[in-house]
Parts: sequence; structure tokens; C-alpha cells
Amino acid sequence: MVYQATVSAPVNIACIKYWGKRDTKLILPTNSSLSVTLDQDHLRSTTTSRADPSFTKDRLWLNGVEEEIKPNSRTATCITEMKRLRANLEAKNPNEPKLSQFHVHIASKNNFPTAAGLASSASGFAALVKSLATLYQLPSTPSELSLIARQGSGSACRSLFGGFVAWEMGSSPDGSDSLAIEVASREHWPEMHALICVVSDDKKGTSSTSGMQRTVETSALLQYRIKHVVPERMKLVSEAIKTRDFNTFAKITMQDSNQFHAVALDTEPPIFYMNDVSRAIISLVVEYNRVSVDAGGPIKAAYTYDAGPNAVIYTLKENAKEIIELIVKYFPQANQFRDPFGLFGENGVQGKVVDGFNTTVVKPFGIGAVKELIHTQVGDGPRVLATEEALLGDEGLPPKA
Amino acid sequence: MVYQATVSAPVNIACIKYWGKRDTKLILPTNSSLSVTLDQDHLRSTTTSRADPSFTKDRLWLNGVEEEIKPNSRTATCITEMKRLRANLEAKNPNEPKLSQFHVHIASKNNFPTAAGLASSASGFAALVKSLATLYQLPSTPSELSLIARQGSGSACRSLFGGFVAWEMGSSPDGSDSLAIEVASREHWPEMHALICVVSDDKKGTSSTSGMQRTVETSALLQYRIKHVVPERMKLVSEAIKTRDFNTFAKITMQDSNQFHAVALDTEPPIFYMNDVSRAIISLVVEYNRVSVDAGGPIKAAYTYDAGPNAVIYTLKENAKEIIELIVKYFPQANQFRDPFGLFGENGVQGKVVDGFNTTVVKPFGIGAVKELIHTQVGDGPRVLATEEALLGDEGLPPKA
Repeated sequence: MVYQATVSAPVNIACIKYWGKRDTKLILPTNSSLSVTLDQDHLRSTTTSRADPSFTKDRLWLNGVEEEIKPNSRTATCITEMKRLRANLEAKNPNEPKLSQFHVHIASKNNFPTAAGLASSASGFAALVKSLATLYQLPSTPSELSLIARQGSGSACRSLFGGFVAWEMGSSPDGSDSLAIEVASREHWPEMHALICVVSDDKKGTSSTSGMQRTVETSALLQYRIKHVVPERMKLVSEAIKTRDFNTFAKITMQDSNQFHAVALDTEPPIFYMNDVSRAIISLVVEYNRVSVDAGGPIKAAYTYDAGPNAVIYTLKENAKEIIELIVKYFPQANQFRDPFGLFGENGVQGKVVDGFNTTVVKPFGIGAVKELIHTQVGDGPRVLATEEALLGDEGLPPKA
Repeated sequence: MVYQATVSAPVNIACIKYWGKRDTKLILPTNSSLSVTLDQDHLRSTTTSRADPSFTKDRLWLNGVEEEIKPNSRTATCITEMKRLRANLEAKNPNEPKLSQFHVHIASKNNFPTAAGLASSASGFAALVKSLATLYQLPSTPSELSLIARQGSGSACRSLFGGFVAWEMGSSPDGSDSLAIEVASREHWPEMHALICVVSDDKKGTSSTSGMQRTVETSALLQYRIKHVVPERMKLVSEAIKTRDFNTFAKITMQDSNQFHAVALDTEPPIFYMNDVSRAIISLVVEYNRVSVDAGGPIKAAYTYDAGPNAVIYTLKENAKEIIELIVKYFPQANQFRDPFGLFGENGVQGKVVDGFNTTVVKPFGIGAVKELIHTQVGDGPRVLATEEALLGDEGLPPKA
């Protein structure tokens, strides 16, 4: 009997940013956050977990390379917690096989290059937890699993759901109420699209784990943000999602990206994640929205930046084409745009701006400043995959490269 | 009889930043600020003012080009206020000539290129007000004159003093207590040196006048800064200056520069003044200080940035040579370093780092990223100059170019 499960899990990009822990071991945040889950058809982590009495220890392979599971590491914590849930189930159902007593082999891979600087820890830990939950046949809800994924990587808890997801910070010291909930499903607002601009950067970044704790320790502004700004924004953006009000969604998303980078800058020494290319993309989005708003129209695009220079631009499907044309105009691409939604036909992207756009707001950059453009949309939660998708072979080991 | 006076006035660079007005007409700030006055031997505005019954209107020339004095403009306000003070004096001393009833001709120039992006409005309005005060033989103190210079350009009020200067925000709605005071003279701490790194920038900046009002209107973080952060920092940095505690001075100066740019970024749409070169200079200063602090030494340099990409690095005289070597190492210069303090001798600046410096924190830039380095020090207040320095010829007009 082979006890094995393979799942994939999505990336999520926050509109209300998570920055700061009140408990670094349990990964309890200083504020609630809210994200959009992106489509696994384009970006995903895939993980296979197997339990077997012949295994001599827990082992992990990431993108084909074995990684040591250190005692008390975040990965070890997630595996231990999942085994504990399995043991509870076995205790209630004595006929269940004692999988909780077996060691596990886990293989995981991402379908996007690590070099792209896209956070893979969220999708990675969500896939890890979901694959073990499937292997162990746990009845746990996504919110229950999010409690464990959170201890792997905070933002991973939000990747247990599709659609629009809140991570409620909770108040309990044991973290039992710091979990993800669905604000709305992908089907509620399927027109939500995202364009990821992968930005080249020479600079060695500050890791988000160490960066956010420095902010907690040194930024006076963070304390104000936590107490007085985020709670109101969580309400407003949740309401905007429920009413499909893109204008409000966009406004708050941009404000909160700005404020996250503001508190990073208010840190000692200061933390910068955006560079001149990131700044230029902001200027383009601001001008693109100005043209629409000045003509009595809505805000049509919202930029947001995580702990790196890459931009994610949220927009509605109807405006995606204009925005891709705009970005390509200022950031010429080495490779042809992959066009997963079939917007451009044979001629491909020309690179152009909308009528009334002030082209002097930004000077065009050279090829490579934006290395890649990934067009995607709001997506679903973790998927259980067929046996053929497994990343472990008959021996319970990844296939040789 | 020729009624004329020529003065020069210095530039000042704030350690605690002024950003936000509570009254835009009177230029009353939302918080107090504090600056170091730089040496007029290196950077100055020079202004000649003349009053004559034959003049048919008030006229102004900036760097040889006539500028219209618009009614109710800031320049007009300063001239009107100075004439009012003269009229008061004439009322008390009936034998004084009635200069307040004559029109004035005013010629002003800066000895630094406007293209350098160094704020000339502070030194310019200080020189304007001081030249009129001298022309009118007013008994006004520098603090009294600062009330008027403030209405020309907020930070100009701080250029009425040498040394270390606070602009007390005051509380009166009429602005009568929003003025500059001396915290310490230049002689108190003559070792305070400054290195100005003139940074090239393609981007059209946001004017500080419009930028700060957008921050007042849209940044929640600014309100916290004003109420809870600045008052404490004003006390701490004043005390650091009085005790010549460079470590504390530097720490707070860098924190406050960071926080000013943080609230600019928290503005809607966000305002960026620093670019990738500015960020790189911060990284160099942070690493340079780390080497010293890790060896049990003090903080040796403090960066600060105003509403543009230029860095000003404060340091003590004994460390200036190391810092110039460091900046030149990463930012090679087209022209030889002008060495006003004679630090380098025949071989000039080599471009090198101190022992233990992690050279990978920043990649070296090409020639021109930092266009110019200006080495200066804490300086004195406005100077009354000899007749030979006058910028107006016999006719009361600037000499033809």
C-alpha cells in the first residue's frame, strides 16, 4: 500500500500588507492582512508527500535538491503539527493505519523561477500542509490548515483559499485564532486580473523575516499603522471586494503598498525594496489612472509591491490589454509576451499609451529593466492532483535529474 | 545719496525636517525643525537692495535675469513687510529719510548652479530680508527678521543664523511666534563638516510646496509624526548639539531623513525624492558606520536628504577624508575633487574604503551618477558686504551681461 498525495497550491499577493510579528515562533502578526489568490494555471507550487514504514527519517526535496529538515525549523514544525492531527484522528478511529508514526518523504517544486524574486514560501508551505492533510485524510477545513501553514510562513496561511482571503490576526497568545478566512470566492469577481512585472535588481535585498522585525523594533510609524490604519482598511477593502467596487479596492491597495514601504523606510537602518524601475511603474499607473479619472472615469489599475522590486498590477479584465501595452511601451521586452488570455492576436503587443497620456512622466527604459511580464487572474485554492503528477517515484525518491 | 546694502546669506540643511504647513499663506509649519547652517565661503546667495525716489516700481533680478514681482507673491510679501518695519522706524524717528516710501531694486545671485538641485530659496530669501534690513538700518534681531523670511520660504527663516538653528513652530494663528532661534553657534562645534553629493536625476521631481500639502492632506502617518515623534527628536538633537554628541546627532538625523521620506511615500499619489544612487549612498554610510560601531567606535557619518536625490553627509572633520575616499570609490568623478580644506595633497583622492568594509553592499556606479562633491562645514549667519560687492551699478540696474 502506497500512502501518498500530490497537491498544488497558489501564490497570493496582499492588498493589505503583513509586516511585523507579535510572536516570531508562532508567527502571529501585528496586524490583519488581505490578499488575492492568483491562478495556479500560471503560478503554483506542487508537492508530493508520502508516508512509509520503511523510511528512516523525514526528508524534503525542493526543486529536486534535498534540503535538511532542521529540528525546530519551520518545516519541522509544520510536519510535526500535521502528524499530531493525524494521531488525533487515529486515536478516534483505531482502524486507521498509523501513518502518524511513519516518517515522510516530501518533494516540492515551483513552476516559476526562484530568480524571478516571486515569493515561493506562501505557495510552498500551503502545498506542504495541504499535501500532508490529503495524505493523512484529515477532515480539517482550510482555516484549520491555515493555522499550521502560518507557522511555516505567515502569508502561506492565505494560500489555503482561492479568491479573496483575509488573515485575521487574532488575539490569543497560542495563535489559535490567527487564521485565514475567505472574503469572497474567485467566482464572485472573476474579472480580477493581475499583471506581474518581474523587475531586475542588482541590490541584495533584506529578507522579509529579519526586515519586519527590525521595523517592529525601530519604527514609531509602524505602531500607528497597526493600531489606527490597518483595521479601517481591512473593513473598507473587504467591503469593496464584496460589492465588486474596483475603484475603492485599487485606492486602498495602492495606499497600503505605499504605507508598507513607508514603514520599511522608517526602519533603522532603512529598508528599501523598490528601485527606480519600481518607481517608474508607479508613475505610469498613476498617470494611466489620472487620464481615466480626469475624464470622469474610474481608477483602472492598482500597483502593489511586496518585499522586492517586482510590481503586481491589479486590474479588471477589460483593462488588461491597455496596461500591458503601456508597460511594454516603457519597458521593452526581450521575449514575446506570453498571452494566456489571447488578447493580442498575431501582431502581438505593440507598446502604446492611451489617448491623453502624458508620455513625459517616465523616460523609457532599456530591454531587461522589466525582465518578464506574467498575466494572470484571481484563482482557486489548493488542488489535489492525480497520481501521475507525483514528484516521488516508486522508491519514494524524486526521479534522478 | 545712495541708499543701498549688499549682504550674503547661507544655505542650511535640516536634521529635523520641515514637511507640512498648517497655514499656507503665512507659512506656518506643522512641526518644528532644526538645521545646520553651511559655510558661505562655499555656498551662498548674495543680494543687493537699493531704495531710490527715482525708481518707478519694485524690481527684482535673479542671477542677472529680471523676474516679475507679482502682487501677493512671497517676494512681494517680504518686501511689504520690510517696508512696514522701516515705516515704523521712520514714525519713531522723524529725521530718518523716508526710504519706506521709495521703490526698491533688488539683485540676487547664487554661487552654486541651480542645476545642482540645491535649494536656493532658503539662502535667497534670507539674503533678501537681511539686505533690506541693512538698507533700512533696522534694529531687528535675526529672530525678528526670521518671521519675515519665513513668509518667503519656510526654511529661509533658519538661514538668518549661523551654527545650529531651530525653527520653533509656534502656536499663534498670526505666526508671531513661529521663528528661528540659535541652538548653538558655529564656534561651539566647528568640527561639524558636511559633504554634499550632487546626484544626477532624470525624473521630474514634485515641488516641495505642492508635495508637502499633499502629504498633509493624505498621509495618516504624518499626523503621528507631527504629534508624537518630532517634539521628542527636537529635544534630543538640541541636547546632542549642546553636548557635542555626534553619535546621537547622527542617529536622529538619519532617522528623521528616513521618516520624512517615509511620509512622502505614504502620500497619495506617493512622492519619491531619493533614487537608486541616493539609496546606494545610504547603504555606504550604513556600512561605514557599522565597521566603526562593530569595533566599539562611534557612528561617524549621518546622511540626510531633502526634497531631491542629493545626499548631504554630516561628519566630524577628522572623518571627512575617509568619507570622501569612500564616496569617490563608488562614484568616480569626472573632475578632480576641489579640496577646500587641503586634505589630500598632490595625489588627490584615490577612492578607497576603510579596513573591514564589506565592498559588496553596493556595486560601483559610472562617472556622472554623483556629478559633484562639495565639501563644506558649519558656517556663520548673513554677512554685510562691502560696496565693491554690490550687484547693482550706478544706475541702480545690474551690469549688462
